Amino acid sequence: MKAAVLHPEGGLEIEERPVPEPGPEEVLVSPRLVGICGSDLHYYKEGRIGDWRVTEPHVLGHEFAGVVEEIGPDTETVPVGTHVAVEPILPCWNCDSCNRGVYNLCPHISFTGSPHTDGALQESVVVPARGLHPLPDDMDFQLGALVEPTSIAVHAVRRSGLRPGETVTIIGAGPIGLLILAVCRGYGAGAVHITDIDPGRLAIAEALGATTAINVRGMETEEIRQATDRAGTDIAFEAVGSARTLETAMELVRPSGRVVAVGVNITERIPFNLMLAQSREATVIPIYLGRDAFPEAIELLSSGRIQGDRLVSHRFPLEFAAEAMDTALQGGEGSVKVMIEVNSQPK
Amino acid sequence: MKAAVLHPEGGLEIEERPVPEPGPEEVLVSPRLVGICGSDLHYYKEGRIGDWRVTEPHVLGHEFAGVVEEIGPDTETVPVGTHVAVEPILPCWNCDSCNRGVYNLCPHISFTGSPHTDGALQESVVVPARGLHPLPDDMDFQLGALVEPTSIAVHAVRRSGLRPGETVTIIGAGPIGLLILAVCRGYGAGAVHITDIDPGRLAIAEALGATTAINVRGMETEEIRQATDRAGTDIAFEAVGSARTLETAMELVRPSGRVVAVGVNITERIPFNLMLAQSREATVIPIYLGRDAFPEAIELLSSGRIQGDRLVSHRFPLEFAAEAMDTALQGGEGSVKVMIEVNSQPK
Amino acid sequence: MKAAVLHPEGGLEIEERPVPEPGPEEVLVSPRLVGICGSDLHYYKEGRIGDWRVTEPHVLGHEFAGVVEEIGPDTETVPVGTHVAVEPILPCWNCDSCNRGVYNLCPHISFTGSPHTDGALQESVVVPARGLHPLPDDMDFQLGALVEPTSIAVHAVRRSGLRPGETVTIIGAGPIGLLILAVCRGYGAGAVHITDIDPGRLAIAEALGATTAINVRGMETEEIRQATDRAGTDIAFEAVGSARTLETAMELVRPSGRVVAVGVNITERIPFNLMLAQSREATVIPIYLGRDAFPEAIELLSSGRIQGDRLVSHRFPLEFAAEAMDTALQGGEGSVKVMIEVNSQPK
Amino acid sequence: MKAAVLHPEGGLEIEERPVPEPGPEEVLVSPRLVGICGSDLHYYKEGRIGDWRVTEPHVLGHEFAGVVEEIGPDTETVPVGTHVAVEPILPCWNCDSCNRGVYNLCPHISFTGSPHTDGALQESVVVPARGLHPLPDDMDFQLGALVEPTSIAVHAVRRSGLRPGETVTIIGAGPIGLLILAVCRGYGAGAVHITDIDPGRLAIAEALGATTAINVRGMETEEIRQATDRAGTDIAFEAVGSARTLETAMELVRPSGRVVAVGVNITERIPFNLMLAQSREATVIPIYLGRDAFPEAIELLSSGRIQGDRLVSHRFPLEFAAEAMDTALQGGEGSVKVMIEVNSQPK
Repeated sequence: MKAAVLHPEGGLEIEERPVPEPGPEEVLVSPRLVGICGSDLHYYKEGRIGDWRVTEPHVLGHEFAGVVEEIGPDTETVPVGTHVAVEPILPCWNCDSCNRGVYNLCPHISFTGSPHTDGALQESVVVPARGLHPLPDDMDFQLGALVEPTSIAVHAVRRSGLRPGETVTIIGAGPIGLLILAVCRGYGAGAVHITDIDPGRLAIAEALGATTAINVRGMETEEIRQATDRAGTDIAFEAVGSARTLETAMELVRPSGRVVAVGVNITERIPFNLMLAQSREATVIPIYLGRDAFPEAIELLSSGRIQGDRLVSHRFPLEFAAEAMDTALQGGEGSVKVMIEVNSQPK
Repeated sequence: MKAAVLHPEGGLEIEERPVPEPGPEEVLVSPRLVGICGSDLHYYKEGRIGDWRVTEPHVLGHEFAGVVEEIGPDTETVPVGTHVAVEPILPCWNCDSCNRGVYNLCPHISFTGSPHTDGALQESVVVPARGLHPLPDDMDFQLGALVEPTSIAVHAVRRSGLRPGETVTIIGAGPIGLLILAVCRGYGAGAVHITDIDPGRLAIAEALGATTAINVRGMETEEIRQATDRAGTDIAFEAVGSARTLETAMELVRPSGRVVAVGVNITERIPFNLMLAQSREATVIPIYLGRDAFPEAIELLSSGRIQGDRLVSHRFPLEFAAEAMDTALQGGEGSVKVMIEVNSQPK
Repeated sequence: MKAAVLHPEGGLEIEERPVPEPGPEEVLVSPRLVGICGSDLHYYKEGRIGDWRVTEPHVLGHEFAGVVEEIGPDTETVPVGTHVAVEPILPCWNCDSCNRGVYNLCPHISFTGSPHTDGALQESVVVPARGLHPLPDDMDFQLGALVEPTSIAVHAVRRSGLRPGETVTIIGAGPIGLLILAVCRGYGAGAVHITDIDPGRLAIAEALGATTAINVRGMETEEIRQATDRAGTDIAFEAVGSARTLETAMELVRPSGRVVAVGVNITERIPFNLMLAQSREATVIPIYLGRDAFPEAIELLSSGRIQGDRLVSHRFPLEFAAEAMDTALQGGEGSVKVMIEVNSQPK
Repeated sequence: MKAAVLHPEGGLEIEERPVPEPGPEEVLVSPRLVGICGSDLHYYKEGRIGDWRVTEPHVLGHEFAGVVEEIGPDTETVPVGTHVAVEPILPCWNCDSCNRGVYNLCPHISFTGSPHTDGALQESVVVPARGLHPLPDDMDFQLGALVEPTSIAVHAVRRSGLRPGETVTIIGAGPIGLLILAVCRGYGAGAVHITDIDPGRLAIAEALGATTAINVRGMETEEIRQATDRAGTDIAFEAVGSARTLETAMELVRPSGRVVAVGVNITERIPFNLMLAQSREATVIPIYLGRDAFPEAIELLSSGRIQGDRLVSHRFPLEFAAEAMDTALQGGEGSVKVMIEVNSQPK
């Protein structure tokens, strides 16, 4: 079978590999569509994210939907042929965090598609049966590949404690920021403002129902506030990952508001304005992936309450995986969610 | 009348001043006992806290109880002679924050006892009638002077969302840390661990019901965890104010736990381990003083559910205000809450 | 001016009356559209609801939108000509309930349109300035007249504690049941089932997004369960008002679910299956009108997130007020929300 | 071994029986102290509670602590000799309710000590290993036998959503009412009022910290309100089980308050004042036993935060089980919690 293999010294090559065998409690899945995530780009470009490093040939891909091909021995699960989205989190299921239900915070966690568990950019991938989420009949693979990032948005909005009618600012209109916008809309938020510096992404934000989609290139915080909610919003989602935008988020919420830190910053320690946070009692809610959110993400996407297709800007065949990565890397210019077609018969 | 006056160039002098006159909606209060707070020490020693600066002669003192002496014109309030604790927060009562009830976050806030509103280290002080909280008959001035710091502890515990049975770590056994311990106990917390480097304060913590009161001088975080709750506690209160202990707090909560940032750090920006916060989804809840918490603080202290007297280590007459400050500055060695007797007939 | 006057001995007559004068803190409003509510029908047909009785000639009408005509002396409010919806609750604003914000539970409450405060079925009506809620420019009077019943649905859903993804059963597809359906949808509910015995109302329920709209005529509870959610839903709204449907609601929620008692039953005491409620720990949440919900209702209706126009089945001119009442009384047969045009220039 | 056997035709006889054998996942426990509960009295006197009937010889007793005597085959549990309290709920562990964690609401539930699973009034009893809760070293069997009723009080207070400082009325100062009082106190409630008609029980209530312990014999609701909190309390616990006191509870909470229905009434349907409930938006929270509350109950009792010993009024040896039942039946006159010593070596 074919696999897109990332090498430690750099370079993404299409290679022939033997089809892997699922063990007990495992299944073999044939991926159809795989979304590219910001973390994939870190591995592609820099070979690492923090302490996670590509030290041997590795197959990326953790946002995906496909078809169950083969079921491991002694494994009770859905039948071969079922269309599924696959939760890529691999917790130990045996520690205090796993037992308390916060399995995304398991200290022994690994991930399908992160070094060194091969991911979905290959024609067949082994995953635990526990991670399968069947897709409804009328849900295609493109929406299926959006389930994973949508689950993160669902988790972030849940953790924000959003109540209907509350107002929201989202900093960053990348895929996660846009999905947070869509989830907030679906959950009855009042005004939802979103900021970015890419006009294409802001246009999508407007189509998804943003109250204000504002290009903040060159703007001061005070100008942004004047253009959005002068009194500050109840919640701000930081979906960029810079220290500066985290501080902006604290300034854009009302006193006693909540800042949800979704964006990832791989710097060991960032400068943080604790006095500002205290003087406004801005609660900071950090997010790490998601948990228990795949079923809700499937429901939101398949019912059309989230118009996921609006996010997909490009699709490349597996052979052009490197081009897909490069397109996603450039960002902006209409590039939002880039997907790779791994097998050629999408539903 | 006598006043302890802090001068911009340094030095706390006892001086004669005319008795001030209360205006409309104001009252004149005769302070009896005044507690010294960490913020008083910053003004005493450094002449400033952030942008708040002593630029003209100033009277400190915002933790106090006393007797209503005189009532301003057109002012409806409690009768002359009433024993009261006085809320020192002076919000505008007219902005969005004040209207929403989060008056401690009013952007126009000032404080009785902060530059340049004279505080309670004088024989008579003018305060707004709105800030008076009558003391029950059986509550003395010493407990009354503890109402203000207790109200901060109540507010911090409320903001933490503590549920009965949840476990707690408190970093720092100064007056606020000790009062947080007492409030957590009174609200049904499970195990409550507290850390400090002063044996005297830790002894008081034990008397107030700490499950573990541990001297962390020279200990690594991992050693602290071994000595307290190995799995981490549900909540950690940071009551020291250093960047390092804030990070320790994040390491000492369970995944998905809450860190309450009570301690003040006047550095503009501190180094903050966002990746750590995210990987554990440690929510950071910053605290700024308190709100709506005086009645509950009075109830807790007067009913004996909080044994406030255990915290008071020293009492000095007004004439020795500078010595009182110096004693509080040295800290440790048994110094916890130092109080100043302003008028000589304490109840 | 013309007024539709209900007489204690029965009969709704169009009569000439002098235009009333607004006093201080009052305004005169020219109603344009007035919805008929179930409570109006009780007064029209039976002359009473519980202890509220029509003992002198009375003008009904409390669901309405109109135009500000005249402003009372010493009254600060919106300008003459403003289009407004009017909150009909008249609390004392001075008791414990009013001070705590639960003004709909004021023990001294009266209502615009309930005996004996004249309501909106006349060409000009005096209302307190405090009850005015300006309509957005693009919101017409028909939607404006739906704000009051929508505010009740918003309040009921808020009190239910609905979280996104939770499942819902609604018993009764009258205007309030349908609006609850629409609000649940707008707030991210999962499956929403609704039951009634009128096919026309069920068709509207489907158009508003019901997962299941089921005609329960002649069905046993167990059959209803089989046709909706076999495991029971998280929440059931009882919007009929019979003792039997309240018990059905308790049977249709999952163990530990919530039953929201919206429907009114004017019997002094109804038979209640406490053992059933306990064995399933079904929390019963009674609803009385609404509070603080007009702005959110306006937002939901004006943004199109609730398609209010679908509910309006009939409009009659004021002269035919009695016919309008009779049409609403018959119910079913396509009659959902019947409205009366009081003044002839609807926007 | 000896067993106190209740016969369908009435009569509690001490009989010799063979020692039972624990099966897989089961253990044999030697009960030391067994508390008598109101439900035991229904079986003793009337032979039934609702559909639960004593149709064959039966051994009562579900509030108990004892010593692990023998462990069934293939059973991993605490060692023989461990002192334990035993959770008497026997859910199926396999239905929707059990999977969602609300195992006390399992529709297939049965109970150790309810017909026809023999309980603890015998020298050895078989229980599932899953129900064992080891007692701390310093906790005696008398406190151990109070764990079960305390767990119900903990569950009721949890379900009430009590926040520190909230005010409480408890109707009924039987063992459960008194334990609710103690738990509310331990969780930081403000004023806690309790009513009963037995002076002995009210005296215990005062010792446990009731703000007001009031004898309501012959009092009208309005008089009770005058004697407790005129504005109504935030929460009322109904711990008697009559329709009349449930209505009183609704009248004694503040508008928007919560009524927790703990008391059991075996009438099929009771008269319920829905209009009253709605006009005050009094949420009714029914309680069925408890869940996940044994560890917290053990913590509260063993730490002394609940002074359980104050509740125990009588202890009888097993031979006098019938006398114990009769004493408990008479109630009042100082009889609160009656216990039976099953084996003679209490720790």
